[in-house]
Amino acid sequence: MITTIDLNSDLGEGFGRWDLGDDEVLLGIVTSANVACGFHAGDPTIMRRTCATAVAHGVAIGAQVSYRDLAGFGRRFIDVPPEALADEILYQIGALDAFARLAGSRVRYVKPHGALYNAIVHHEAQAAAVVEAVRAYDPALPVLGLPGSAWLRLAEKAGLATIAEFFADRAYTSQGTLVPRDRPGAVLRDPDVVASRVLSLARGEPVAAADGTPLRLRAGSICVHGDSPDPVPMAHRIRETLTAAGVTLAPFTRGAGGERP
Amino acid sequence: MITTIDLNSDLGEGFGRWDLGDDEVLLGIVTSANVACGFHAGDPTIMRRTCATAVAHGVAIGAQVSYRDLAGFGRRFIDVPPEALADEILYQIGALDAFARLAGSRVRYVKPHGALYNAIVHHEAQAAAVVEAVRAYDPALPVLGLPGSAWLRLAEKAGLATIAEFFADRAYTSQGTLVPRDRPGAVLRDPDVVASRVLSLARGEPVAAADGTPLRLRAGSICVHGDSPDPVPMAHRIRETLTAAGVTLAPFTRGAGGERP
Amino acid sequence: MITTIDLNSDLGEGFGRWDLGDDEVLLGIVTSANVACGFHAGDPTIMRRTCATAVAHGVAIGAQVSYRDLAGFGRRFIDVPPEALADEILYQIGALDAFARLAGSRVRYVKPHGALYNAIVHHEAQAAAVVEAVRAYDPALPVLGLPGSAWLRLAEKAGLATIAEFFADRAYTSQGTLVPRDRPGAVLRDPDVVASRVLSLARGEPVAAADGTPLRLRAGSICVHGDSPDPVPMAHRIRETLTAAGVTLAPFTRGAGGERP
Amino acid sequence: MITTIDLNSDLGEGFGRWDLGDDEVLLGIVTSANVACGFHAGDPTIMRRTCATAVAHGVAIGAQVSYRDLAGFGRRFIDVPPEALADEILYQIGALDAFARLAGSRVRYVKPHGALYNAIVHHEAQAAAVVEAVRAYDPALPVLGLPGSAWLRLAEKAGLATIAEFFADRAYTSQGTLVPRDRPGAVLRDPDVVASRVLSLARGEPVAAADGTPLRLRAGSICVHGDSPDPVPMAHRIRETLTAAGVTLAPFTRGAGGERP
Repeated sequence: MITTIDLNSDLGEGFGRWDLGDDEVLLGIVTSANVACGFHAGDPTIMRRTCATAVAHGVAIGAQVSYRDLAGFGRRFIDVPPEALADEILYQIGALDAFARLAGSRVRYVKPHGALYNAIVHHEAQAAAVVEAVRAYDPALPVLGLPGSAWLRLAEKAGLATIAEFFADRAYTSQGTLVPRDRPGAVLRDPDVVASRVLSLARGEPVAAADGTPLRLRAGSICVHGDSPDPVPMAHRIRETLTAAGVTLAPFTRGAGGERP
Repeated sequence: MITTIDLNSDLGEGFGRWDLGDDEVLLGIVTSANVACGFHAGDPTIMRRTCATAVAHGVAIGAQVSYRDLAGFGRRFIDVPPEALADEILYQIGALDAFARLAGSRVRYVKPHGALYNAIVHHEAQAAAVVEAVRAYDPALPVLGLPGSAWLRLAEKAGLATIAEFFADRAYTSQGTLVPRDRPGAVLRDPDVVASRVLSLARGEPVAAADGTPLRLRAGSICVHGDSPDPVPMAHRIRETLTAAGVTLAPFTRGAGGERP
Repeated sequence: MITTIDLNSDLGEGFGRWDLGDDEVLLGIVTSANVACGFHAGDPTIMRRTCATAVAHGVAIGAQVSYRDLAGFGRRFIDVPPEALADEILYQIGALDAFARLAGSRVRYVKPHGALYNAIVHHEAQAAAVVEAVRAYDPALPVLGLPGSAWLRLAEKAGLATIAEFFADRAYTSQGTLVPRDRPGAVLRDPDVVASRVLSLARGEPVAAADGTPLRLRAGSICVHGDSPDPVPMAHRIRETLTAAGVTLAPFTRGAGGERP
Repeated sequence: MITTIDLNSDLGEGFGRWDLGDDEVLLGIVTSANVACGFHAGDPTIMRRTCATAVAHGVAIGAQVSYRDLAGFGRRFIDVPPEALADEILYQIGALDAFARLAGSRVRYVKPHGALYNAIVHHEAQAAAVVEAVRAYDPALPVLGLPGSAWLRLAEKAGLATIAEFFADRAYTSQGTLVPRDRPGAVLRDPDVVASRVLSLARGEPVAAADGTPLRLRAGSICVHGDSPDPVPMAHRIRETLTAAGVTLAPFTRGAGGERP
């Protein structure tokens, strides 16, 4: 049985006049905030506010770095040369860190967003570029991502701490990868099903793949944002389920100098 | 007689495919580099390279912060609410600092660019916002600007170190302000004239205003970029003139923990 | 008594991942759509869809042109040189017209957005630039704006058809200008009050200024978007009130070759 | 022997403060101008000026459409969904057409830029999207591209007129495709070699592939921009060579209602 786990969510993803999501409420539920850094979403004012609210709730601040793509919300693969990509990632981490420091904290980890997240599951050169950027900024920064990805593999090789995440509301293939979003059943909408899977994960029990195969997944964090039309009740349910089972929710970065509730 | 003075110049002002200026050469002449931070010019790759080259030459890195205005090169006043402006400035300083640190240095000072520079000569609310951003980032960061401006006055009041700059190639009014750029004679093109003015400044002698009034100007830095069509020879001439007169050229930040040649 | 009037509203103001407002519903209520053109909001896909839906409802398409300012939603004055501003306006009209034509219609009028709208009430040079852009695109295009503004005055002088608009949910000063938005009572939230004012306008009766002064306002269009937190019920109420009073709602451009319901 | 051919070049590729290339001179040499539309380069003022100068020289205006990517100059593949891509292309054509009309002409053809040009040699879905956008704007618009590309094949199938172009300064494989730019010898720098190849093309003689294979290429236009560090002398030489051989240089759109010298 896991005794402590982290809940992470994408936050601060509005821009200018446009809001997205209910950040205030989610920051009272999760323990780690993947804060958008201005390249796919997030403007400086949103970044400042999100960092301040995160710190007020004892939530750890992570840099949710992305391709430069406001128009596409970072959801389109861009064939950025690795050197330029590393520079763009470093830029974003530095910018966010200014707001994290202002709030009395620091950027505690890095989690790529959207198409970049998906690309560096396999794209070795871009994965290496993001690793290089994190290492260049601070070799003590952990990174968050998909178990088995080039991203986590190369990060580990470069000496970075890596944290695997579990997607509470996504179906998995029998190989332990995510069922692509455009397939039927890829996104789980039933709170009972999602709660039960999270509990299995916490108990160290297998979680069923889409075809029924029992999967033994390990994760240091649970991603609760998902694409549910209404993420707050789902996040609430996950938190309650874990708490009721005696699991403590805390930032995975706590041991590494992260926030303390 | 001044024994040591700083030469500052705007650098890193290309973007993507577009170059601007001869940064490599200028970084061998000046002692402080006002590095564009991506809002009016400067992309992450250019920022990284400019910081690396600056450090290699012992040149201090300053954040040349701007309105968000790539299309207008930061040369158009934007009526940004002060709170949003402070956030945008903080974002830029943080982003640049990532590259300065990567190069083994830090952002050593802040100098606003273009329309923002001009606005905060008089615009108290925007001046206060930029001061607030600098103070929030690091109260030990000095700021560079026009003597007599709201910007330097409010910065000083907020406890920041302030450095006044002298424009080597601009005509001054009898009140010690710059002759607006669209007036005849506003920009001085004759290297002999410019060199002679710089020498007067260094010797503590008065510099003539456009109408002949002798002005007693004090400056901790000389801005050598100007708008001369060919800034390199002018910068060279200024450097040679000062060196020949026994003035040491060094970053104004040296005493405060800045670069060492 | 007016027998026919137009209802206009700002539409298509999302961007990429971000939605804003309930365009589908509003397009069933209004008769003219001020469609964002990508500079403060509106991406090409939103523009295409908004134009198609507008035409399906017999709603006239207007170009809601703006400063280039996604981050500020076009709500910050930018001191763009007039020539550059004229070019930016022309660009936006041309881009929107591609989608209007695709939908089987055309751009039927031009209404500036946000800070540009406010600026050209008084800023003669920018007002003249926007007029010049409209005239250059098509001298038969009418323009929509604030009665008494430099914008409408210069447009008329340049031979453009001008339509004055009435703000249903804004308080007016005794001089007939809008009470600035940051003053108490500037925005009217009571549907009964708004309905009664619209009715007065339609009947040719005076509308009360904030201080009670009776104002004789003339308008060819009523702006129903406003800044009410929930604009749909307000727009509905205005439409019903006018219809019940026997006023026909139709695009003001109908006589000039506009849409037909 | 060809009696008439077109010379096309990428133009108007500056942005804001940044210039690129010597448009004034090139517009005196070429017969068709691929004008950037603001997505990879080109701002509204540059677009207006380039169109005006093109018309003054009897040069046909083409829309050089691109991915939305100022930071990457449109040189990075972006996995834009086809529907969104079609909308973005339509937006660009419409915007440019406003300036072409202002100059007394029209957009006469469409040529994709950079990574989009390369992608739609093979990427059927994106190629179809660009074809759809052109057809939606004006089914009479011809398109310019690489012989054998999906782009020209699908355009032809959709009923658009297609013009194949010959790259004067690029080496070809024995299959008639371009030698990738990162291979040695991919770009030809010797004006004599380039001139001789252009002459062979004009005479209907084979042009040698990189491995010596004689290729029979047909083209309605010669692309003279290339990536030579100094394109003007090369363009001049090509023009002189053709003229001396009795070939008339004229826009390929002439027959289809294009410019007349």
